[in-house]
Amino acid sequence: MTISTGEAAAVTVLGLGEMGFALAGAFLDAGHPVTVWNRTPEKGDALVARGAQRAATVREAVRAGELVVVSVKGNPTARDLLESAGGEALAGRSVLNLTDGTSAEARAVADWAAGHGIGYLHGQIMTIAPGIGHAEAVVFYGGDRSVYDRHHPQLDLLGGRGTLIGDDPGVPALYGMAVHGTMWGMLNGFLHAAALLESAGVETGRFLEQARPSMSALVSFLPSIAEEVDRSEHAVEFGALKHHLPSLEDLVRESGERGIDTAFPRRTLDLVAAAVADGHADDSYSRLVEHFRKG
Amino acid sequence: MTISTGEAAAVTVLGLGEMGFALAGAFLDAGHPVTVWNRTPEKGDALVARGAQRAATVREAVRAGELVVVSVKGNPTARDLLESAGGEALAGRSVLNLTDGTSAEARAVADWAAGHGIGYLHGQIMTIAPGIGHAEAVVFYGGDRSVYDRHHPQLDLLGGRGTLIGDDPGVPALYGMAVHGTMWGMLNGFLHAAALLESAGVETGRFLEQARPSMSALVSFLPSIAEEVDRSEHAVEFGALKHHLPSLEDLVRESGERGIDTAFPRRTLDLVAAAVADGHADDSYSRLVEHFRKG
Repeated sequence: MTISTGEAAAVTVLGLGEMGFALAGAFLDAGHPVTVWNRTPEKGDALVARGAQRAATVREAVRAGELVVVSVKGNPTARDLLESAGGEALAGRSVLNLTDGTSAEARAVADWAAGHGIGYLHGQIMTIAPGIGHAEAVVFYGGDRSVYDRHHPQLDLLGGRGTLIGDDPGVPALYGMAVHGTMWGMLNGFLHAAALLESAGVETGRFLEQARPSMSALVSFLPSIAEEVDRSEHAVEFGALKHHLPSLEDLVRESGERGIDTAFPRRTLDLVAAAVADGHADDSYSRLVEHFRKG
Repeated sequence: MTISTGEAAAVTVLGLGEMGFALAGAFLDAGHPVTVWNRTPEKGDALVARGAQRAATVREAVRAGELVVVSVKGNPTARDLLESAGGEALAGRSVLNLTDGTSAEARAVADWAAGHGIGYLHGQIMTIAPGIGHAEAVVFYGGDRSVYDRHHPQLDLLGGRGTLIGDDPGVPALYGMAVHGTMWGMLNGFLHAAALLESAGVETGRFLEQARPSMSALVSFLPSIAEEVDRSEHAVEFGALKHHLPSLEDLVRESGERGIDTAFPRRTLDLVAAAVADGHADDSYSRLVEHFRKG
């Protein structure tokens, strides 16, 4: 078969879950020849109706595409699929693995690909399926720069904010975890706050509107925190841990008086109190990174 | 004595800790006659050198000001001070209490003031001392609108983003706790992420730069979360708890493999897993507010 390149490159999508389906749709919409494969073939019906080819086997699917996109449940499955196609079927093609998992799992797939001379890029998608293709959708990439450069037009179809982080295929997963970990922490804090406000008859939406400047400013604290962590220098002139302590005590007391959860703020209070007791009263909040470093 | 109004209103500041000192300085800088009192009088030396009057007693201080600003350690102390001045000394004046504490403590001071016919406003300062007077500095106010309206020129000197939330003097403290609680949650998540990245040799500052769009977008999730909480309707089509679950499992596994703290992400995993087990797999993350509502 002939493999086209550039704008009209043939793309194969392995795995048609919610995300794989959206990915294949984005390539179809842009006029690429798209071949799809899914363990349950019917998942591809709507894509075939939109012009996709359905492959009967992974090997057949892989042979049809210059760029082979993988979006399945777990990287052990991703690697099994690629192995079942065989290294010789994949030789000369590029693999873009968009499967979630740990950094070690991503590296294991990358190592297998490297062992077979297959160009490999790992991508961590930072949007939900309907966000695919949007200008503000972020995808973190790590792996072979040549794959990134060669398939830039196709990557751009997935999200307007694709970024090649570096050549380590494990780092995109870590970046995803770092963003989501910060998000979960923020959401937990916010939902505790929502319960607190609700107990006083204040709607959370009203709070958010009236406190918009304060809430928008929250992420602006992160660069200085990051710098303190990277330099392992935590002393600050203002806003030190000794000033967080009474505010945390107030939050725990207020929560208790209002009959809402106290365990969540108390854990933060305990962390800050322990750091202050360890002689870090005049340090920035960033000092608490030492707690999280411990296994 | 004659009490001036408007731009040149006489201001009294009770309490010259880091914050009270900054407040008095802001009024002095704007040309207001300022009278200060502190339990340890020497704390006022630098302000006296800048033109402030030092009062020997709280009563004397209160009598010198049209606007009496209180910034001490705890609202029980704030109320004791005002009581020691006496209701008759305060009659016809306005009290702006900027002392931290719980909402009930703030209301107790407000109730005492109301019982003596004293105009009362409670303020929650959302900046550190050097931020006082800056255009972006936020202060949440709650209490008598007449005090807020009358002393607007003076309030503007403290921060460019002063907001009257409503007539409840307890709500500013709750707003402060809601902002800070969200902040602590976010910072804990971010510091855990920093430890994770560090274990992989990635500088946190580099991550923050490369992931800027994702990190900046985090607070943009909050309005929909707030709406779900306020309406107690949590069903979502995309990004439901069942999709958070595998990502949280990855984060816990990755943390364990890297030898950093697993307890922090595991607590969130446990919350999400419990909600999924309770039949909320297709609900938004906002469903977890139910956990925080429980005392």
